[in-house]
Amino acid sequence: MSANNLNGNASNTELTLTPFLKAILMQIRGQDTYGFYRSWSDELILKPFIVTKQKKREISVEGEVDPATLSRINAYFRAIAARIEQETGLISNVVVNVNHEGFGWALVFSGRLLLVVKTLRDAHRFGFESLEKLSAEGETLVEKGLDLAKRFPEVGKI
Amino acid sequence: MSANNLNGNASNTELTLTPFLKAILMQIRGQDTYGFYRSWSDELILKPFIVTKQKKREISVEGEVDPATLSRINAYFRAIAARIEQETGLISNVVVNVNHEGFGWALVFSGRLLLVVKTLRDAHRFGFESLEKLSAEGETLVEKGLDLAKRFPEVGKI
Repeated sequence: MSANNLNGNASNTELTLTPFLKAILMQIRGQDTYGFYRSWSDELILKPFIVTKQKKREISVEGEVDPATLSRINAYFRAIAARIEQETGLISNVVVNVNHEGFGWALVFSGRLLLVVKTLRDAHRFGFESLEKLSAEGETLVEKGLDLAKRFPEVGKI
Repeated sequence: MSANNLNGNASNTELTLTPFLKAILMQIRGQDTYGFYRSWSDELILKPFIVTKQKKREISVEGEVDPATLSRINAYFRAIAARIEQETGLISNVVVNVNHEGFGWALVFSGRLLLVVKTLRDAHRFGFESLEKLSAEGETLVEKGLDLAKRFPEVGKI
């Protein structure tokens, strides 16, 4: 909380934490075993998720995907899984598979039901135009997943 | 065909090609763009899938999983997908994700339905006691997948 206030005072724009942004922060802070992010504001943690079109063009898609980028991709899909879990009580798993060329799959599933299926490309450049976009796109995937979980509850609970 | 006969003549035991073993061979020969396996008998191609308990103990689980082992894991699950496709007409995808410690997931899915969900561990030591075991275990996963595809056709076709 104090980090949140600090951030609000330090920057001009107030950060609006939507449920999805909160879910991402929870994933990152929850996995922060060594307290690396303890003193970071929410805004600072979320900042690397913002990659403008201009910035994307500057990121090379040669070589391996940066481990920090990979862990952001993981946090994003784990946040989607956590949001669906909040709403349905279904426990879900996340599998992200990115090859050396930045292509791959991100899957979120409960039981035998795939709640999210997303093909990844140019994973090196993973990011969103703004926090609003990040939140909106994440929440769209959450909604689609929730819709499926409601339509096929017997498959999600296998 | 000629490779098959050659193999039959060369070895003492006749190789019985079950539908599952045929599916594995088809995956490997089908991906053999450079003709690496063209002169290999079926038996020779399948041989590395046989890893006895004794041999498993000798394989270190330190370091990265051998690329050849990874491609056998892929061929195995792609063969399962192909068998299910033969029987149902459902197009399926295979995602295999193994981390540096040899742990991971193998998933086969059609639409939003997970036909196979398998956690992998000690992937370095992937293999089967015999060709019969390989065929039987693969076919068991095929049967389970078929059962799910029949129970939830509307999820598999999304």
